[in-house]
Amino acid sequence: MTIGNPLDIAFVGSRMDRSDHIRTDPDLLAAVTTPAARLLRLDGLDPVISPEGRLEWGNLAEAAPDAELVFLGRQGERACFAPVPAAGSVAPANPRLWQAMATLDADELATYGGARSMVDWHARHRFCARCGQPTVPAKGGWQRNCTGETCRAEHFPRVDPVTIMLVEHEGNLLLGRQPRFPAGSYSALAGFVEPGEAIEEAVAREVLEEAGVAVRDVTYIGSQPWPFPSSLMIGCHAWADDPAIVIDRNELEDARWFSRAEVEDAMQAIAHGEGGRAFRAPPGSAVANALLRWWVSRG
Amino acid sequence: MTIGNPLDIAFVGSRMDRSDHIRTDPDLLAAVTTPAARLLRLDGLDPVISPEGRLEWGNLAEAAPDAELVFLGRQGERACFAPVPAAGSVAPANPRLWQAMATLDADELATYGGARSMVDWHARHRFCARCGQPTVPAKGGWQRNCTGETCRAEHFPRVDPVTIMLVEHEGNLLLGRQPRFPAGSYSALAGFVEPGEAIEEAVAREVLEEAGVAVRDVTYIGSQPWPFPSSLMIGCHAWADDPAIVIDRNELEDARWFSRAEVEDAMQAIAHGEGGRAFRAPPGSAVANALLRWWVSRG
Repeated sequence: MTIGNPLDIAFVGSRMDRSDHIRTDPDLLAAVTTPAARLLRLDGLDPVISPEGRLEWGNLAEAAPDAELVFLGRQGERACFAPVPAAGSVAPANPRLWQAMATLDADELATYGGARSMVDWHARHRFCARCGQPTVPAKGGWQRNCTGETCRAEHFPRVDPVTIMLVEHEGNLLLGRQPRFPAGSYSALAGFVEPGEAIEEAVAREVLEEAGVAVRDVTYIGSQPWPFPSSLMIGCHAWADDPAIVIDRNELEDARWFSRAEVEDAMQAIAHGEGGRAFRAPPGSAVANALLRWWVSRG
Repeated sequence: MTIGNPLDIAFVGSRMDRSDHIRTDPDLLAAVTTPAARLLRLDGLDPVISPEGRLEWGNLAEAAPDAELVFLGRQGERACFAPVPAAGSVAPANPRLWQAMATLDADELATYGGARSMVDWHARHRFCARCGQPTVPAKGGWQRNCTGETCRAEHFPRVDPVTIMLVEHEGNLLLGRQPRFPAGSYSALAGFVEPGEAIEEAVAREVLEEAGVAVRDVTYIGSQPWPFPSSLMIGCHAWADDPAIVIDRNELEDARWFSRAEVEDAMQAIAHGEGGRAFRAPPGSAVANALLRWWVSRG
């Protein structure tokens, strides 16, 4: 039995039981918050990886007495927590982090990704956006409450939906490159869903804004949680009738149509960490890589 | 040419050109911020509706000199703004609001929904969640910047992805009711996507948590922006093999399987504002109503 995300992709597939009924019940939460409970070892926001290439876990007895903790859920009967670091970060992952994460299996990588998003959110939300007073964690770390007597606002972890899309015209795919990309790299266009937009509307707006291409018949392919800091990548496909491109130079350095042969070649090359003849494809952990694999496999 | 959302649904279909290139260019933004630009008339967060049942627009000359403004985009060549009210709210819409909104056409309702989410976000984010110092609007109201000298954090409008799902077993649908629902009302189960989850994983977790039902083969149907305060409703379908239900009484008062005939009857009844023989279906503006229409129409 599979849940049904058609993308085989990084950060999906945690087997952690989130046990949300424990978060909301102070007695149950206290009962699992024991010195023997598991504590994810983090170096700031980064994972600590064992010599065997696994996530390292300590136990709650190691946590500082005033540490803020997030209840991640349970593995079997053992409760698992993650510690909130002193400072959060929205900096993109460093190369050493990617190397370390490459050794984790799917379950552990997904567990780490979710934990990273949660502790990063806590570290960047220690104050109330409504009134400026300090906030404190609640419900096992799945909420923060304002301490201001006249405010008492409740704040919840943030997940930012992002559309990322394969736009197709007569068997060719539209890909673009941002100035910060490695030399020769092209990837799927992408952008945040804005308030007031359906997913399909966000796809159409982004492609029109960035490449001047009108699309129709947007369909959903699959999704990925992306923990830098906490996006929900929503992978889509759309059709274009007119291939004329007008590039928004504030967003993209280039955008081009690539043939199926060029995409297939680039995907074979990146599987060995190399660039293809026409362009360099996105790395295996990125949702764009999974979307291109999906497209190539459809033939 | 249609964009492709298969749901015919409220809050989708704004024809406003969001013109994001203007937000990010101070000269272009200043050029459209003229006394003659359109200003959406709001009563707090609610729309002001004309006797003809349309959104009322004034012009920027009416705005207070210190008013915070959101640049909504352009209608033709006319720039459109919305004023941020003194206080935001997460309260559900009142009945009078629903009555008023029912008179708006699809374009205007969607434009209002997006504007409401934006001004509500501003009103509830006047302080920096990282350091507690005041924030000020930037980029035409699509960003807020911290004024703290050592912080300077940038904050962006929030969109919360929510999964809402039709779970099917041998031609029957699983629907639930929360204690706050009107008498006899049942609707699709729903819940926020959490950090570290793909859409399909969030669907499976919610159904298991709330009704104890395991699902497989989750597929996406369509989406809706829901402006109370700023959700992205992601409508899905999933299959269940075992119909045994275990209700989470913290979330639901009841959950039951309804036959196709019962769903069809309830959908015919709610089209006239009435309850059906087996249950009362969700109202026409809700994504759950659109999902049930989609399911009935598939036959």
